[in-house]
Amino acid sequence: MQLRQEPQFFEMNHQLTYYECDESGHPSMSMLLSMFSMVSDAHCLFLGMDTATIQQTGGAWVITNYEGTLAKNQPTFGDQVVLGTRPLEYNRFFATREFWLRSENGQEYARVKGMFVFMNLTTRKMESIPAQLIEPFQSSQTKRIAHLRRPQDLADGKAVQADYRVRYFDIDVNHHVNNARYFDWLLAPLEREFLSQHRVATFAIQYSQEVRPHEMVTSVGHYHQGKQGLESQHQIKVGDRLCTIADFTWY
Amino acid sequence: MQLRQEPQFFEMNHQLTYYECDESGHPSMSMLLSMFSMVSDAHCLFLGMDTATIQQTGGAWVITNYEGTLAKNQPTFGDQVVLGTRPLEYNRFFATREFWLRSENGQEYARVKGMFVFMNLTTRKMESIPAQLIEPFQSSQTKRIAHLRRPQDLADGKAVQADYRVRYFDIDVNHHVNNARYFDWLLAPLEREFLSQHRVATFAIQYSQEVRPHEMVTSVGHYHQGKQGLESQHQIKVGDRLCTIADFTWY
Repeated sequence: MQLRQEPQFFEMNHQLTYYECDESGHPSMSMLLSMFSMVSDAHCLFLGMDTATIQQTGGAWVITNYEGTLAKNQPTFGDQVVLGTRPLEYNRFFATREFWLRSENGQEYARVKGMFVFMNLTTRKMESIPAQLIEPFQSSQTKRIAHLRRPQDLADGKAVQADYRVRYFDIDVNHHVNNARYFDWLLAPLEREFLSQHRVATFAIQYSQEVRPHEMVTSVGHYHQGKQGLESQHQIKVGDRLCTIADFTWY
Repeated sequence: MQLRQEPQFFEMNHQLTYYECDESGHPSMSMLLSMFSMVSDAHCLFLGMDTATIQQTGGAWVITNYEGTLAKNQPTFGDQVVLGTRPLEYNRFFATREFWLRSENGQEYARVKGMFVFMNLTTRKMESIPAQLIEPFQSSQTKRIAHLRRPQDLADGKAVQADYRVRYFDIDVNHHVNNARYFDWLLAPLEREFLSQHRVATFAIQYSQEVRPHEMVTSVGHYHQGKQGLESQHQIKVGDRLCTIADFTWY
């Protein structure tokens, strides 16, 4: 299958490295989302929106939610894969985008939707999306944007918990804790036995408050056998501040 | 400059992703070493030594030391770079290899030597390097191999220290803590102010004992202004067990 690179559809080749994969040999969730972030950046660049263009607005794109499904069969490090993304819709304040990971011959490994807002870096508040950063995608403008699924609250089940201090190397070039990194915090408390025997089937995550450098996060998870199989709900807090909620179902 | 792919010299193209870079926008030390590991794997694969070939021996390559220099000017995420490696020499128990990172037109960003031994995965002891894993490189066999520089012991200076618990996602496909990950532990205690104002110029690291999943490591560093500029010495311990020593000089 040939790659398409257009305003409304963008794909790139990528060879999966071993450090994008966890112990299972398949991409870790944090690296999957990092790769999606990469293809999104490449799409912007392809349409002439480089870092300088974005910085000139005095703001930055901020992710609020992801929601996605993963196939049971996942690629292995060394594999040639294709990363893809396309804009879905937007209104004054919100924009949604779809991402996928597939094999070169079209087998789909993951499909994820993301919702973004635009933050003024001086006031640290949301502001309307600058026209020059959204129009190049030629996506549909809409009054009422379809929101992503809100992750479930903690349900009954076996509880796990761990504290993690933000490490210097969790901070990315945008000078804040990388969004993908939250997946390491969310999942690591489940521990090796669980993680080596199960794989993510679906997930939803909602970022509400930023974790800052130096802070200590508490990651809490509950898991139980639900009607559709094994499921888990998670929270990341800094003290009493609820920063992120997420849920997963598992193969 | 064209890429050469031969038994004694191997290069590959790579586009630097933002998640291989730290807050400075340049590759983090842990990712630099991960990328070198990747080009080394690619070289093995190019010569017909895939994971299965290595697993059949019942053993695995283990890194004991790295020693290297970095240029002041480093590439930035999004850049097309070239990763290279070549075997240096070997004897019954040790093999050395050189790595480099350069721009497409030949500007060198980093040059690193690594020393490897071969470990029997059942006895967890060093054993002689299997002929089928070393002969394909056509490198020179020697009685007395040139050893790499041993990192300096802790010297006087400002002391920094931090504890890190091994996270599940620090473990790689070989089921142990990724060697490159140690650089995050070594450097993170220096904190953001130091790390945002200085860049690694030279380093040496010696791995003596493995850190295991679930363990808590203590990372200690001392830094001071030496004759050649700012320098630091580091130790990683698990309780009283000294696992890794390293030193750095800084731009």
